Amino acid sequence: MTPAQSALIDAVRAHSGDKAVVTDPDDIAPWLTDWRGRFHGAAPAILAPANVEDMQFAVARAHELGVALVPQGGNTSMVGGATPPADGSALILSLRRMNRIRSIDPAAGLAVVEAGVILANLHEAAEAQGMRFPLTLGARGSATIGGLVSTNAGGTQVLRFGTMRSLVAGVEAVLPDGSRHDGLAALKKDNRGYDLDHLLVGAEGTLGIVTAATLRLVPAVVDRATGWLGVESPAVALTLLRAMERGSGTAIESFELVPKLALDLVLKHIPGTRPPLDSSHPWLVLVDYVAASPDTAKPALEALMQDALAAGLAQDAVVAANEAQAGAFWRLRDSISEAERAEGPTMAHDISVPVDAMPDFMESASARVEAAFPGVHCSAFGHLGDGNVHFHVNAPAGADGDRWRAGVGEAASHMVYDLVVAAGGSISAEHGIGQMKLAELERLSPPARMAALRAIKRAFDPHELMNPGKLVTLAPSPPTP
Amino acid sequence: MTPAQSALIDAVRAHSGDKAVVTDPDDIAPWLTDWRGRFHGAAPAILAPANVEDMQFAVARAHELGVALVPQGGNTSMVGGATPPADGSALILSLRRMNRIRSIDPAAGLAVVEAGVILANLHEAAEAQGMRFPLTLGARGSATIGGLVSTNAGGTQVLRFGTMRSLVAGVEAVLPDGSRHDGLAALKKDNRGYDLDHLLVGAEGTLGIVTAATLRLVPAVVDRATGWLGVESPAVALTLLRAMERGSGTAIESFELVPKLALDLVLKHIPGTRPPLDSSHPWLVLVDYVAASPDTAKPALEALMQDALAAGLAQDAVVAANEAQAGAFWRLRDSISEAERAEGPTMAHDISVPVDAMPDFMESASARVEAAFPGVHCSAFGHLGDGNVHFHVNAPAGADGDRWRAGVGEAASHMVYDLVVAAGGSISAEHGIGQMKLAELERLSPPARMAALRAIKRAFDPHELMNPGKLVTLAPSPPTP
Repeated sequence: MTPAQSALIDAVRAHSGDKAVVTDPDDIAPWLTDWRGRFHGAAPAILAPANVEDMQFAVARAHELGVALVPQGGNTSMVGGATPPADGSALILSLRRMNRIRSIDPAAGLAVVEAGVILANLHEAAEAQGMRFPLTLGARGSATIGGLVSTNAGGTQVLRFGTMRSLVAGVEAVLPDGSRHDGLAALKKDNRGYDLDHLLVGAEGTLGIVTAATLRLVPAVVDRATGWLGVESPAVALTLLRAMERGSGTAIESFELVPKLALDLVLKHIPGTRPPLDSSHPWLVLVDYVAASPDTAKPALEALMQDALAAGLAQDAVVAANEAQAGAFWRLRDSISEAERAEGPTMAHDISVPVDAMPDFMESASARVEAAFPGVHCSAFGHLGDGNVHFHVNAPAGADGDRWRAGVGEAASHMVYDLVVAAGGSISAEHGIGQMKLAELERLSPPARMAALRAIKRAFDPHELMNPGKLVTLAPSPPTP
Repeated sequence: MTPAQSALIDAVRAHSGDKAVVTDPDDIAPWLTDWRGRFHGAAPAILAPANVEDMQFAVARAHELGVALVPQGGNTSMVGGATPPADGSALILSLRRMNRIRSIDPAAGLAVVEAGVILANLHEAAEAQGMRFPLTLGARGSATIGGLVSTNAGGTQVLRFGTMRSLVAGVEAVLPDGSRHDGLAALKKDNRGYDLDHLLVGAEGTLGIVTAATLRLVPAVVDRATGWLGVESPAVALTLLRAMERGSGTAIESFELVPKLALDLVLKHIPGTRPPLDSSHPWLVLVDYVAASPDTAKPALEALMQDALAAGLAQDAVVAANEAQAGAFWRLRDSISEAERAEGPTMAHDISVPVDAMPDFMESASARVEAAFPGVHCSAFGHLGDGNVHFHVNAPAGADGDRWRAGVGEAASHMVYDLVVAAGGSISAEHGIGQMKLAELERLSPPARMAALRAIKRAFDPHELMNPGKLVTLAPSPPTP
């Protein structure tokens, strides 16, 4: 521990009490590694202020003392975005004690929520008021609002309501010098200069610490139906989505595309799973239909499915008979990554291209990667209607995990990202940059873009004290090995 | 003309041809004054590159030579945002020759539109493809896409589709050093660092020049009905809006609140106008109802009106019999500012507060301003559902315009803005800051916010060459007189 870190810890303890500081290595240990066990860091302490004033105090002192801070919520980053640097140069700044839902206003459709509130808890609180916070994702039991805002999280319900950015009506943040940005007032129109809220959404804590947000709520779901369809190709799946949307307005809230081989792996590796359809199809689609009146979703989804079968857009279809079966249907989708990992080493890529270009991209990118790296198998699944899939390159049977990843895996990843950029797409659709994609962002962004990112970072945090080594560094990052 | 300006003009002419430079004072004159005749500037030349490469050349040379540029589209700013400085230190950079609609894709619901395209022309082009660009405003025959993006324009259709920001799927811009930001790819999910598109939207040309945008289109209107209702108060009007929204989903696209006195002034000063209702009411509401099937809008709006009358939310109501009458109905609303100016001097304030707080705000702010400045009369009208009204303070009869404005008018404006800030609102809901509100923004923003705005400005444009003297200056602006 450096003298400056020690002074910061003492100051925070004196100002905010013992609970605001964690120094026991056993208590710190779980927060030094990302949840997938890929990134490991070190930190001599966790600071955990319980309110925004204490947060301002801690950040202001850190600023004066030159101590770096790594903000952390549920620690569910997919890109090492919340793991401290390995040299122990930063303290973790935990948001978990800022866990109050300050207000829920069903009439206005707004909630003011602190950064440390766990997503599932917000879901419950909104439901208790007849409302719904419509963003959800696999990590909802751990992920916190601050992290979701700071990474502009996506998930499986983006089709209708957009990513976190479109659900954020305002942001409260502690800026790097300890001053407070209060953007919580939910103004539908406000043109007072550069939009600081939008700048902080997706900034991964590198420009300041998001401490609370005003979030949009929508009316609670009255009725929901979930079903699977078997289809011939991603192109047909997209045509199917457009047809279902024409027939139902905004009732289709999820439309997840899954290849047969991914489903087969789930059935092989995940206990208690069963195939949703009796027949076999090269591609499957999982659909969620939401209705505003009771007992109308299932018949409405069945009618859409009948149309799809009649039009030849799908070859088979089934609607869940009840909530338990709907849950089992979703479990198949949510278990794909786990099943692929159980099968062998895989390189995952969270990518997007313009929606209409996705079917072609999936086909051509898979063909090119499989041709360039004999034995690998590509598998793309996910949010077709958002132009966002998880593009996995799976190792040949029997490959040694670490060696394959460092060699063929890395090379294949380069190729995937090159193809994405050539298609006008994004190498990070919903997971952000963190530390994992820092070098690839540098490699694949035009110099003008990197210069703009650095200029913004320098303007807010010239000494790189806010989540250092994430998203962008002031010095060009080293090339990918 | 300075030697640097002269060198820039020569370089642009040599690179981009004679059409790219205007130096005849008679041709320049109309662009030196804002359309309301309030702000006057000087400029030795207008540069008018016709494509993004030529725009990059001009901006890069200006950057090297240290010449300031004032971007200008339709010159319809309400806050002097496109008027050059009075000392002739800047050239005007006109976007009007960049007026191509690069593409319209009805299936994807997207158009790529250059900055100089006039809004009404985009409306027509979209309609020709069965689509609609849903943002509109009074200046649609002059205002250009670049200006609408750069000011995050609002207008009368924001209720359903939001401001310009929510209709922009991507931005192309020339940054202050002449490099290009290409954000035109319409990715529904993209988390590659700070959102540069959102930073440029509403930046009023102070961080770079928006040269094109990818805009969202929606299906063309199949049927529309327009009507007026007479109501008792703004609070009742808001209850009425909520009731109509519950009864119609997203069919209510406009909901404009107008006080009786404003309507009376329109009828007095605007030739050919007629009262929409036979009866007299303290407040009136203008509603646009949009339907997806032919001949359904009028009966649907009439049914909503019957419900409102039955519930006592309105005392009288009428639906336009045809398009001509609908046009006449809208003309009443669109003529309020002109009528108030004809009646006497007025101070206009484009303000917002949270939607639910607006009825109380209108009442209490009017009472306080009228008490503090005996003889003045406050009049607030506009976009109630957006929490955004145009709050006018009208001079007593017989007041001398310039003297009243500089004295009582300015003082009353201060008070209005103070009350807005106290209510958690914005002193610029849809018009931006420009040069008109520079000092008030400084006076009424927390130091942390001003520091953040300046840090961003400095990061992109440290020598203040991009639209100097607008939105924010690096030196604190002088206090309001």
